[in-house]
Amino acid sequence: MKQYKVGILGATGSVGREMMKILLEREFPVSELHLFASERSAGKVVAWNGRPIQIELASDDAFKGLDIVLGAAENDVAKRFAPAIVKAGAVFIDNSSAFRLREDVPLVVPEVNGEDVFNHRGIIANPNCSTIIAVTAINALRQLSPIVSIVASTYQAVSGAGAAGPVELSEQVSAVMKGQPVQPKVFPYPIAFNLIPQIGSEQESGYTSEEMKLQYEGQKILHLPALRVSCTCVRVPVMRSHSLSLTLRFHHCPTVFEARRAIQRAPGCKLVDDLGEGQYPMPLDTSDQDLVFVGRIRPDLTDEDGLCLWCCGDQIRKGAATNAVQIAELLINGEG
Amino acid sequence: MKQYKVGILGATGSVGREMMKILLEREFPVSELHLFASERSAGKVVAWNGRPIQIELASDDAFKGLDIVLGAAENDVAKRFAPAIVKAGAVFIDNSSAFRLREDVPLVVPEVNGEDVFNHRGIIANPNCSTIIAVTAINALRQLSPIVSIVASTYQAVSGAGAAGPVELSEQVSAVMKGQPVQPKVFPYPIAFNLIPQIGSEQESGYTSEEMKLQYEGQKILHLPALRVSCTCVRVPVMRSHSLSLTLRFHHCPTVFEARRAIQRAPGCKLVDDLGEGQYPMPLDTSDQDLVFVGRIRPDLTDEDGLCLWCCGDQIRKGAATNAVQIAELLINGEG
Repeated sequence: MKQYKVGILGATGSVGREMMKILLEREFPVSELHLFASERSAGKVVAWNGRPIQIELASDDAFKGLDIVLGAAENDVAKRFAPAIVKAGAVFIDNSSAFRLREDVPLVVPEVNGEDVFNHRGIIANPNCSTIIAVTAINALRQLSPIVSIVASTYQAVSGAGAAGPVELSEQVSAVMKGQPVQPKVFPYPIAFNLIPQIGSEQESGYTSEEMKLQYEGQKILHLPALRVSCTCVRVPVMRSHSLSLTLRFHHCPTVFEARRAIQRAPGCKLVDDLGEGQYPMPLDTSDQDLVFVGRIRPDLTDEDGLCLWCCGDQIRKGAATNAVQIAELLINGEG
Repeated sequence: MKQYKVGILGATGSVGREMMKILLEREFPVSELHLFASERSAGKVVAWNGRPIQIELASDDAFKGLDIVLGAAENDVAKRFAPAIVKAGAVFIDNSSAFRLREDVPLVVPEVNGEDVFNHRGIIANPNCSTIIAVTAINALRQLSPIVSIVASTYQAVSGAGAAGPVELSEQVSAVMKGQPVQPKVFPYPIAFNLIPQIGSEQESGYTSEEMKLQYEGQKILHLPALRVSCTCVRVPVMRSHSLSLTLRFHHCPTVFEARRAIQRAPGCKLVDDLGEGQYPMPLDTSDQDLVFVGRIRPDLTDEDGLCLWCCGDQIRKGAATNAVQIAELLINGEG
């Protein structure tokens, strides 16, 4: 079996570290793993697959000879190094939002639009974490009937803001329990025992950048350019796993029975839907695994062409690192 | 000024205790306060307005001579004693859901349908806490144009489950921080760092009893019998104040500017709406006060007749105790 030289750009963040784990878990055929970071981390040694790897300084010359580079860095870093990665002949599978909406860059959730991977010109984008969870949950439903619009309210975990998010929530919770004051650093306001209805910056029509991603990225991934999405993104004091309350409008609405059956068979999904028995998706149950749990499927009482549902998924794994490694798997399997 | 003999049925719970505070805060003209509870609490003495009050055992004979009884007990207790309260000639302002949908019982949010108070035949019902917050937030908007439907996702604090809710969240958070196991008692699953997308029992079409209240009680309070509501109720690890993400469909949609102006002038509301400046309602800011904060007002991108907004309010105060005392105020002012 062919082996690949793989790099991770931004290896020291929470997504980069998760990518290292998932390459091993999924037995991705890695001959060499190169970890790239900024000067702050370069030179440090981390363990991977029982051997030490020294973190390299990201530079234009650093990517020569690599086959695949997984991007786990911020937009500016992704933009800075993408040309060098592509020039080196590697495929850049990037988790930042820098290239997601570019026409020459596929935006891929393997269970949804895996075939798009092969249209790449050196860069493949990994979608926004909430978007990955939502489209994985609803993909089987749009195969029953085209989806016209989505009203979404999110419940997003603090780890969506990087490794510093859970640290901040832990520190704030401890401070509150001791009656001490709280000093927000990562989030603009206290998040312990609070909700913050802003993720991302103000963008258009009163929506945030994070809220618009579900519409624009959803349109591209689902190949539904007319899809309309109204999203409200809310940070909640949960460590890990994003949840979404979705109301979907269809051309012709599937029944709840049809929807459940479709989700039961959908790759990447787990149907957890028995309200009478107290069975529904919850973030504590969906953390540290790769499936998107879907439940609370029921008719939309405001529109006969609508369905409501609730879904949860681990936004660091399926919402980021796992999805990127799955894209890499598609690439190498498509080659063979 | 006329003084009133007031009773509180279920005085030892979180809503009953808040009613005691709010009678004082709002200087309700109380000549005598009688506190009623079950055998577990009867005989205990609590302080109110600088004097001791012995808690009385609720019984059919206990209500004689009272003018107003505020109900802060569960449905079974409310049903058990309502006939005796009415027979004693007192008006029963009941916070349970036992009588809310009965045709001969007004269901009142004073800022919204205060005039309904005077149609009572001895019982006036206080609406569900999330419903009070939602209808207070949207009342000024439906005066701009009739509301046809609402899609709602709630973010409900643990204190909505009574005084034991915050105790359970505190205990669980402490246990998790120490790496100890968590034993749910009040809630069916751990609530620390988790979300539970079930409040109330399974009712119809896959909705819970709590979710259907927003439709049925909303129809009655707003005098909109055709109003359709799809609600998803979610318990979140917040101590106090419920939040709702609402998408409203109108006959003719007001502009965001009109909506903001209307809410700015609406009694019971505070407009907190400047995304660029990071201004929006949050539960920590809305706790321990009576206004419903409304923000994130923006067009619904899925429907040209829609608006989205986000609102928060203290569900023990405006969502329960304050609203009940406001109803009592309407009653006594209407008498005068």
